[in-house]
Amino acid sequence: MSVTAAAGFEAAGVSAGLKSSGGLDVALVVNRGPLASAAAVFTSNRSKANPILWSQQVMADPVVSAILLNSGGANCFTGHEGFQTVHASAEAVADALRVSAGDVLVCSTGLIGEQLDRVRMMAGIDQAAAALDAHGGTAAARAIMTTDTVPKLGVHAADGWVVGGMAKGAGMLAPALATMLVVLTTDAVLDSSQLDAALREAVRTTFDRLDSDGCMSTNDQVTLLASGASGIRPDLDAFTAALTDVCAELARQLMADAEGADHEITITVAGAASESDAEEVGRAIARSNLFKAAVFGNDPNWGRVLAAIGTTSAEFDPYNVDVRMNGVRVCHEGGPDAPRERVDLAPRALLVELDLFVGAHSATILTNDLTHAYVHENSAYAS
Amino acid sequence: MSVTAAAGFEAAGVSAGLKSSGGLDVALVVNRGPLASAAAVFTSNRSKANPILWSQQVMADPVVSAILLNSGGANCFTGHEGFQTVHASAEAVADALRVSAGDVLVCSTGLIGEQLDRVRMMAGIDQAAAALDAHGGTAAARAIMTTDTVPKLGVHAADGWVVGGMAKGAGMLAPALATMLVVLTTDAVLDSSQLDAALREAVRTTFDRLDSDGCMSTNDQVTLLASGASGIRPDLDAFTAALTDVCAELARQLMADAEGADHEITITVAGAASESDAEEVGRAIARSNLFKAAVFGNDPNWGRVLAAIGTTSAEFDPYNVDVRMNGVRVCHEGGPDAPRERVDLAPRALLVELDLFVGAHSATILTNDLTHAYVHENSAYAS
Repeated sequence: MSVTAAAGFEAAGVSAGLKSSGGLDVALVVNRGPLASAAAVFTSNRSKANPILWSQQVMADPVVSAILLNSGGANCFTGHEGFQTVHASAEAVADALRVSAGDVLVCSTGLIGEQLDRVRMMAGIDQAAAALDAHGGTAAARAIMTTDTVPKLGVHAADGWVVGGMAKGAGMLAPALATMLVVLTTDAVLDSSQLDAALREAVRTTFDRLDSDGCMSTNDQVTLLASGASGIRPDLDAFTAALTDVCAELARQLMADAEGADHEITITVAGAASESDAEEVGRAIARSNLFKAAVFGNDPNWGRVLAAIGTTSAEFDPYNVDVRMNGVRVCHEGGPDAPRERVDLAPRALLVELDLFVGAHSATILTNDLTHAYVHENSAYAS
Repeated sequence: MSVTAAAGFEAAGVSAGLKSSGGLDVALVVNRGPLASAAAVFTSNRSKANPILWSQQVMADPVVSAILLNSGGANCFTGHEGFQTVHASAEAVADALRVSAGDVLVCSTGLIGEQLDRVRMMAGIDQAAAALDAHGGTAAARAIMTTDTVPKLGVHAADGWVVGGMAKGAGMLAPALATMLVVLTTDAVLDSSQLDAALREAVRTTFDRLDSDGCMSTNDQVTLLASGASGIRPDLDAFTAALTDVCAELARQLMADAEGADHEITITVAGAASESDAEEVGRAIARSNLFKAAVFGNDPNWGRVLAAIGTTSAEFDPYNVDVRMNGVRVCHEGGPDAPRERVDLAPRALLVELDLFVGAHSATILTNDLTHAYVHENSAYAS
């Protein structure tokens, strides 16, 4: 059900010929109200795609009636012509739905540096508007897939209100092809500032902690829309918890479907002086190609974990760090402990636990191993 | 000839059984004087190996009589026992050469997190001291190889004085196995402060601009020793230029021998507001797995170049950037220009030229593509 699990939303996913495969490639999600409140977070990449530049303008006044999404082209580094394509697309959605173009968000994903076919996009918008349906969430989720092998859907039903969502992405923070697009919907009664607070808190500990290859997309966007159709005004903490639950579930699905991955790696850093220290340490490990290649080779190479920590500014003592892999303490006080052969890396899930012994803060980062399939997929994508 | 090209130096490379292959694994380079001035730069990784901790103490008083190097073990994250091994090794060198242990540098490379075999190391030191020879430079260069396929040697002969050097490493800034160790020697008459100034300037634009996989070693060390045996006191600028020449040649050899690489990528960033901006932009591109995987697939994916720039803090306008690959301008004013198919990526060398059009500064970064062989070598090393 994804984005249409919450009352007040309709969606569609259609094939407009933007993808050479002929698969679904244009999605439309419409908020039928009564509310049209919204919040969004955008990529922090300074090379922002044209749909991001457009959507940021739309969010200056956080009223959103609809969100248009396409795969088959990122519309990034396509100059003024590319921006005009976004603008024309929003106008076409506005015409079809009888709303204001200034209330239409646009998201794109696919190859960078090539113009989107505007004629096909316009036809796709008409087709999608005609196909809108209160059960269209799954088709919409399929239409935003690129290298994804499965659609990502999440739902949390609370007491009279619902949070639903869809996501695409073969890894967070990955540019060009692996853009992360997320649309979250709720029928709870919340205004845009409440949505914004809840969304930022939920993203901070879910999507922002997913780091498949350290690359940062030009097109990432996470949007939360509220219809108010349930008539129920939830406690904001309860809503934030439900939203975080859906985001965590979608993040887990993104990690599981990351390009070419053989292992899903969860890195937990405890005993840090601050949460940001813990996050920096976890992220440095998640970005070490050498560590990630070792995991692919089923080698519990904890030395590469500690080498990665040394590149951070986090407080730690190299002579007092413990590292556990799948429960086996392979490093104690910064030196070798249990033989690394005792660690079983055959399962797809790997838990790496660090203790820095300098404070009480912790953070968890999700990542994947570096595999032949990752290299293959990313060397072959454009061809 | 490498480190023994300059008068006043002897070297040896012997097999002590530290490497399971039985190959050469202990090197000794001795400065017979009359001078014993020296300079060194060390890894900035905060997880420093025991030989780095020792050598930093030695350099507090920059008089160096000898440098001991071993492959077959990094002696990193080996705790106090590991530090004692370094100390005992320096004492053994000092005994054999009748010098002070406080004037003996130590460098190690190999796997992290395992103790070096101290008995074998002691025997290796005795053997190396007995084998010291004014033509021992090549054997020494062979003894520090790990995944290197060839020894790296460099010589620059000037007017009556010489700079020679050896290097090992399958990439700069790579931890654990791909540590970069460099020993440079000269018979010019220079004191330690002059050597330090020349070395920092030479390293800044050579080894520091080589970034094979963004990882940072725990064991990197570049050392420059002067014997003064030529009796000639060169102009410091001329000496720095000669030293930079040798460092650039060794850096080029390191790039050419990087683990599993199919392409040698030179990234030149021009038109930057500052040299540090240019370097940051070049390094961000050099660290993009997605860009490097595309190059492996012979795909001139300039969108991934621009996505990488967006992660930096450098001054630039996404709508006014040009990108050339092997001379073909594939991106002009931030949008598509010549068809990417015109770029021939079949040759091993790839030149990526960016112009940011905001200033007059530039920098060049050397890197490699991300290949199946890189993943394989780094997943299989420890087994």
